Amino acid sequence: MSPPSSRPAAAPESPWLAADTRAQQRELKRQAVLHAAAQLFNERGFHATSLDDIAERLHVTKPTLYYYVKSKDDILLECVRTALGMMRDEIVVVRRAGGRAIDQLVACMRVYALIVTQEFGRCVIRIGEDPLPPPLRRELRALKSGIDQEFRRLVAEGIQEGSIAPCDPKMAAFMLGGALSWIGRWYRPDGELSPEQIADRGIALVLNGIVTRRRATKT
Amino acid sequence: MSPPSSRPAAAPESPWLAADTRAQQRELKRQAVLHAAAQLFNERGFHATSLDDIAERLHVTKPTLYYYVKSKDDILLECVRTALGMMRDEIVVVRRAGGRAIDQLVACMRVYALIVTQEFGRCVIRIGEDPLPPPLRRELRALKSGIDQEFRRLVAEGIQEGSIAPCDPKMAAFMLGGALSWIGRWYRPDGELSPEQIADRGIALVLNGIVTRRRATKT
Repeated sequence: MSPPSSRPAAAPESPWLAADTRAQQRELKRQAVLHAAAQLFNERGFHATSLDDIAERLHVTKPTLYYYVKSKDDILLECVRTALGMMRDEIVVVRRAGGRAIDQLVACMRVYALIVTQEFGRCVIRIGEDPLPPPLRRELRALKSGIDQEFRRLVAEGIQEGSIAPCDPKMAAFMLGGALSWIGRWYRPDGELSPEQIADRGIALVLNGIVTRRRATKT
Repeated sequence: MSPPSSRPAAAPESPWLAADTRAQQRELKRQAVLHAAAQLFNERGFHATSLDDIAERLHVTKPTLYYYVKSKDDILLECVRTALGMMRDEIVVVRRAGGRAIDQLVACMRVYALIVTQEFGRCVIRIGEDPLPPPLRRELRALKSGIDQEFRRLVAEGIQEGSIAPCDPKMAAFMLGGALSWIGRWYRPDGELSPEQIADRGIALVLNGIVTRRRATKT
């Protein structure tokens, strides 16, 4: 016979989760709410999506949703904030790594193009700033403007280093931002091209233009 | 003394307008409603604008508005329809005039860029398709798609004639459409550049790209 174990008896397991696990679970669930909502916004449009639709997709009740988000506007804001925040963070990484301005610009355009094909990124473009109340609209405008300024700086640096043809960096940033943002409007997850292919081809068109090389066309 | 006039006495003027004049006046007023609404949508956003705001700007009552339009959605639709209809008509004119595909493409891009800076054109881009009920959304999508197809055809013809570098016409039409459409998002009537200057510079950037000529950059 084995001797009685000398280990102290384990404390009985608490039916409540530890505080940090609870916070983690809550954040996971909040992310699931945002993701389901973004999918629905992109499929049906923001106005055509109700909180009931979001609750239904997650198999929960509307009151459950209110535990994680304040309103549909709040959800949209969080989706857009997440996407713009990701863009800003990745652009910071590219900038810190340094290198030629043209290569940094291509890397940042790639970040931008890939994020606008993701669920949160598609919200930025499809929904615009219109449905948000003014203070939130200002917040998002500031985030967007920060990204735009980075593109302008990179174009200006590219002109300095001789890799980018002399142009108005503000106009150039608007035009390339427009071409890339628009991807979020026409991109379909079930389309022919992968996000990476779209990013590569789109960036090549923006960089090189469409006219045959060896003859710049004046308008 | 002059003899009494032999002209028959003029019929007394009716205090009611003739039917065709009435129809004309009604159309003028309807256009004024649409224009005031488009201005407000562009200033404040579609959702932030009420029918009361539109009535106030025109110094009329809301019931008066209902004589010309059915709803705010109906107004938006009419604004967007007008803009897209103008684009389509002007593109038809350019196509009929013929000439090199690259020159036709530049002319069509100019039409597009100029219309998206106008009140009705800015509605197309700022507001998107989201707030409209499905049948109207389909109608607008068809109008937009017709314009997009024309751009694709012109790019394909440009490749044939050697003025446009070999590329995927669909991707090219999306990228140039995006860059030009985006003008409607950032254009401000009180900005530094006129719509014509924006159109010229924007089109030059899209045609020639941004990298220094003599070295195509691969991504």
